[in-house]
Amino acid sequence: MRIALDAMGSDNQPDPEVEGAVLAAREFGCDIYITGDEPVLKQKLAAYPHSDVADKLHIVHAPEKIAMSDKPAFAARKKSDNSMSRGMQLVKDGDADAMVTVGNTGAALASGLFILRRIKGVKRPALTVLLPSEIGLRVMLDAGANAECKPEFLQQFGIMGSVYAEKVLGVDNPRVALLSNGEEEGKGNDLAIAAYPLLEKSSINFIGNVEGKEVFGGGTDVTVTDGFTGNILIKVGEAIAKLMRNRIRSVFKSNPATMLAGALTQSKLRGAFADMDPDEIGGVILLGLNAPLIIGHGRSNAKAVKNAIGAAIKVVETDVVGSIRESIAAELAK
Amino acid sequence: MRIALDAMGSDNQPDPEVEGAVLAAREFGCDIYITGDEPVLKQKLAAYPHSDVADKLHIVHAPEKIAMSDKPAFAARKKSDNSMSRGMQLVKDGDADAMVTVGNTGAALASGLFILRRIKGVKRPALTVLLPSEIGLRVMLDAGANAECKPEFLQQFGIMGSVYAEKVLGVDNPRVALLSNGEEEGKGNDLAIAAYPLLEKSSINFIGNVEGKEVFGGGTDVTVTDGFTGNILIKVGEAIAKLMRNRIRSVFKSNPATMLAGALTQSKLRGAFADMDPDEIGGVILLGLNAPLIIGHGRSNAKAVKNAIGAAIKVVETDVVGSIRESIAAELAK
Repeated sequence: MRIALDAMGSDNQPDPEVEGAVLAAREFGCDIYITGDEPVLKQKLAAYPHSDVADKLHIVHAPEKIAMSDKPAFAARKKSDNSMSRGMQLVKDGDADAMVTVGNTGAALASGLFILRRIKGVKRPALTVLLPSEIGLRVMLDAGANAECKPEFLQQFGIMGSVYAEKVLGVDNPRVALLSNGEEEGKGNDLAIAAYPLLEKSSINFIGNVEGKEVFGGGTDVTVTDGFTGNILIKVGEAIAKLMRNRIRSVFKSNPATMLAGALTQSKLRGAFADMDPDEIGGVILLGLNAPLIIGHGRSNAKAVKNAIGAAIKVVETDVVGSIRESIAAELAK
Repeated sequence: MRIALDAMGSDNQPDPEVEGAVLAAREFGCDIYITGDEPVLKQKLAAYPHSDVADKLHIVHAPEKIAMSDKPAFAARKKSDNSMSRGMQLVKDGDADAMVTVGNTGAALASGLFILRRIKGVKRPALTVLLPSEIGLRVMLDAGANAECKPEFLQQFGIMGSVYAEKVLGVDNPRVALLSNGEEEGKGNDLAIAAYPLLEKSSINFIGNVEGKEVFGGGTDVTVTDGFTGNILIKVGEAIAKLMRNRIRSVFKSNPATMLAGALTQSKLRGAFADMDPDEIGGVILLGLNAPLIIGHGRSNAKAVKNAIGAAIKVVETDVVGSIRESIAAELAK
């Protein structure tokens, strides 16, 4: 297993990436191709004890880096020798099996499309996330790659999401649902209404429209929506969770009795919300490309980078890309 | 102050409505015109002690009622002598100042449009809700009246929402923002991108795009979006809050120590989340009609009905409708 890791993407690059690579090589036994400025990476790597996994860690020189503020198109075109593109090139050339970056998401989407390319027949790749629910993590896409969608895109999101839920979450015959403003057929904006029959006739277990309560209540395994709505969904979810956490913290701070209550429950509460911790999930995946591309958030720490690498390994091992290729080809052949 | 109340709308009608009317007449000193089947309402009313407010409660006979399962168009057209239409007719005829229903939302939207009519110049009325935030309740619209919107609708939602935040929440020069999938100008789906310059040139305090963190973090006073996205936002918010409450409850049930912690914090936690309780908020308002129309949810209890009546009174007292009429006329005259 060979993972290409962009070492120059996070807000605190390259420390989280370098330490995360060491942790991942140790835990997963994979080879990691760390792309970035070689002298800097060598120096950083020396700071983290890694003699046990030294043969697994390979520095690949790429002097340029894409900043969080760089425009995606600019980043993809102008900084050709950047750490992100270099990693993707390794994957494209067959020298690595999957790509992990915690850098500029827009640049990762653009570079992924440009270098790794779409699977034949895939109209648009989709950012695919795992959301917490009453029955464990479940799949939602598109989380933001395509702000404006056509009905056919949503149909393919359903097919790709179904493969992902089956392969990565191990859900048998995953229930695929369309996010809408009501459960009844016929509810929706023009896009959702037009996507409904396309999803219905696809070779997936389409269960119709759902609302938030099914998404988080366990009433669906895969939630399909456009990238505008999906992006708003995850950010609203994060914001509500933060608002509630802040209020719970205030309650615990009220008086000695509530402070005791806080002390008694703190670690259990943290455990209960672990699946809402982006560091645990590791990253999102851009489905629909010819190779796995995992994108973590810029605030990633070493643990988050390690978990993003773990997520990439699982996608490679279960051959998600191959299965999507087959499913899309089969759907087009119908 | 005269409020028309549809007594035959809730899941448990007419009990919550009748008891809510008694509570509201007592607390607010308003006259309430309770529409529904007269013999039934007389009998129900007798069950709730109300001699102190008997002269404030007026039963208006309307033998038919709209079920939650009735299609909006059917309800508005065919059941002309229903309790919902009867109440709106009272408002239209000048015999009441505002309308409150906790019945079928779709039917209320359709009947509101049909009987109360849009304010001159208003393209589409918008369902307007109050959302919890770090700085108190804030305004969001459209929460679901218009699944498919045009940019001009969103511009008017901004104007109407600004009036509402100023009048009802008492926010001076409210910040109005456009919900999008990124804060930078240029982010958005086609609709949001086209609505941005229209909001920018309107006579409101437009602050640009926002994401979930500003909506719930206090970074905006009014959040504008289309009815599809807005409906998903509130339902996702409710679903996340429910998921978190369930998990907190499980943590408290873990062992004797956490049960003690639960007992020590229970009432304070309930207080901390009171603004997420739909019974406290009372209802949403359909802005853009010639009279206030407050729509509560079908599960409303008497307290929720009372609070919906309270919300209606505030809208009448602050002349939200008159101010919207002026603001829309001024914008059209520009």
